[in-house]
Amino acid sequence: MIARIAARLGHGPEVELGPGDDAAIVRAPGGRVVATTDLLLEGRHFRRDWSPPYDIGRKAAAQNLADVVAMGARPTALLLGFGAPPDTPLEWVDALCDGLRDECAQVGASVAGGDIVRGTTVLLAVTALGALDGPAITRSGARPGDVVAVTGRLGHAAAGVELLSEGRREPADLIDAHRRPRPPYATALRARELGATAMLDVSDGLVQDLGHVADASGVRIEIDGAAVPVPPVPDGLRLALTGGDDHAFAATFPQGATLPAEWRTIGRVAEGPAEVVVDGKTYGPGGWDHFRLS
Amino acid sequence: MIARIAARLGHGPEVELGPGDDAAIVRAPGGRVVATTDLLLEGRHFRRDWSPPYDIGRKAAAQNLADVVAMGARPTALLLGFGAPPDTPLEWVDALCDGLRDECAQVGASVAGGDIVRGTTVLLAVTALGALDGPAITRSGARPGDVVAVTGRLGHAAAGVELLSEGRREPADLIDAHRRPRPPYATALRARELGATAMLDVSDGLVQDLGHVADASGVRIEIDGAAVPVPPVPDGLRLALTGGDDHAFAATFPQGATLPAEWRTIGRVAEGPAEVVVDGKTYGPGGWDHFRLS
Repeated sequence: MIARIAARLGHGPEVELGPGDDAAIVRAPGGRVVATTDLLLEGRHFRRDWSPPYDIGRKAAAQNLADVVAMGARPTALLLGFGAPPDTPLEWVDALCDGLRDECAQVGASVAGGDIVRGTTVLLAVTALGALDGPAITRSGARPGDVVAVTGRLGHAAAGVELLSEGRREPADLIDAHRRPRPPYATALRARELGATAMLDVSDGLVQDLGHVADASGVRIEIDGAAVPVPPVPDGLRLALTGGDDHAFAATFPQGATLPAEWRTIGRVAEGPAEVVVDGKTYGPGGWDHFRLS
Repeated sequence: MIARIAARLGHGPEVELGPGDDAAIVRAPGGRVVATTDLLLEGRHFRRDWSPPYDIGRKAAAQNLADVVAMGARPTALLLGFGAPPDTPLEWVDALCDGLRDECAQVGASVAGGDIVRGTTVLLAVTALGALDGPAITRSGARPGDVVAVTGRLGHAAAGVELLSEGRREPADLIDAHRRPRPPYATALRARELGATAMLDVSDGLVQDLGHVADASGVRIEIDGAAVPVPPVPDGLRLALTGGDDHAFAATFPQGATLPAEWRTIGRVAEGPAEVVVDGKTYGPGGWDHFRLS
């Protein structure tokens, strides 16, 4: 099984030594490595009856690669811990691997190693590594006066989940958004050149995630509701503000920065206290209410 | 929960940025990083009624740190994916973290980040990273004429498992060997200075693991049964040859290398075909039988 998967995945030039030894060896130019890990459990983070294995692989890779890119780093390699029942079809595993491989290929990364165990349900433990070619872009660098911008879709995956929960299979665009996020990696990888002061990937919802920037930077973040890109459904703004899983990127840039069209300016950074407001009002997971962070 | 764990774990000088951002940043001097990942599932890899959480943490860290050390690399950081039922006591989690932290401290590493999810049973996905201060020591470098040596205990953990399976709780030394392996990290980390041509950690059983060296190096490995250190139980040689989980290290060194007492010479490397023989006979998992590898 391990040999089959390793052969199917191959590995790229950033991986000096791939599967088959005690550990993999991955290039880390600059003498630092960015690393992040996520656990995805069947039934909780994905459903085999909602998503084909290829898409589960794409998504599992995407959410980790997006975390690396959100640091201003270039993804180099993925490690996969894979648990599955013994009756899992080999074709299912093949398709999962193809999805991981193809998503990695979007950013020049590849799967460097992993572990396979027998479990009662499918579970994926994905670790992504990345190289830093300059300073990291953390959550703590936002400064009063900065503009707030996003790139990528917001609320589409959440709209897709709501449709699937209702037993619907279309619009295909929204269903696909849940099954396979499309993080705008290339745009985010150029954020440093544009002077980004803070960046993160939007995985839990725009307001909640920008809350981490507000908290880490000690600033107030003011969003213009009308400027937020929304999915084409009723109540789109709610989904755009609270829905996760699209893996858009949100960043702050110095006032006056000239941003290309891929970045949409949606607000500004002001003096603290640390909170996120939309059209002047705090906005929590349940709707308009108090959402002070610290 | 995340904040509680992060505070409890702390992180060391090899970790430039710890938990709390999209990803961690770990030092990778030399421009390469060694990386390995393992999945540990409750009921399959550990039992909460057999091992206290502190020992589960020690062991989960140890088996990954040993993989890094077996590459000739110095462990720098661990990432933890942690799944647990919502009713898991916080004190249990605290003790688990203490175990991870203390095992990491043995080698100067620390926990750099992770992910926590709700599950139906406890599961740990541990990724270890390491720095290479010289060439890696892989499984493929063994050459005819080399000597084979081991450092650390063999078969002790397997003896402990057999005792626990029989409902026994002693001898304590063997039970403890199962609960908390003690890989001889420091000795293994000096293997390169001694000229080691290949090395791995013994996790699945000495014969099976040396089989990987035989296979990767294209050599025959000849073991002297009488030279193998065995646990103090009847049938100790069988356990020493086939029992895993002690995380001893096995290595090959050039003929004539002067090895310190921590390394016990147990055999030699000969011309292929790739196989492992004990006292001239092939030895398989079920006993004396054919065990050709490729």
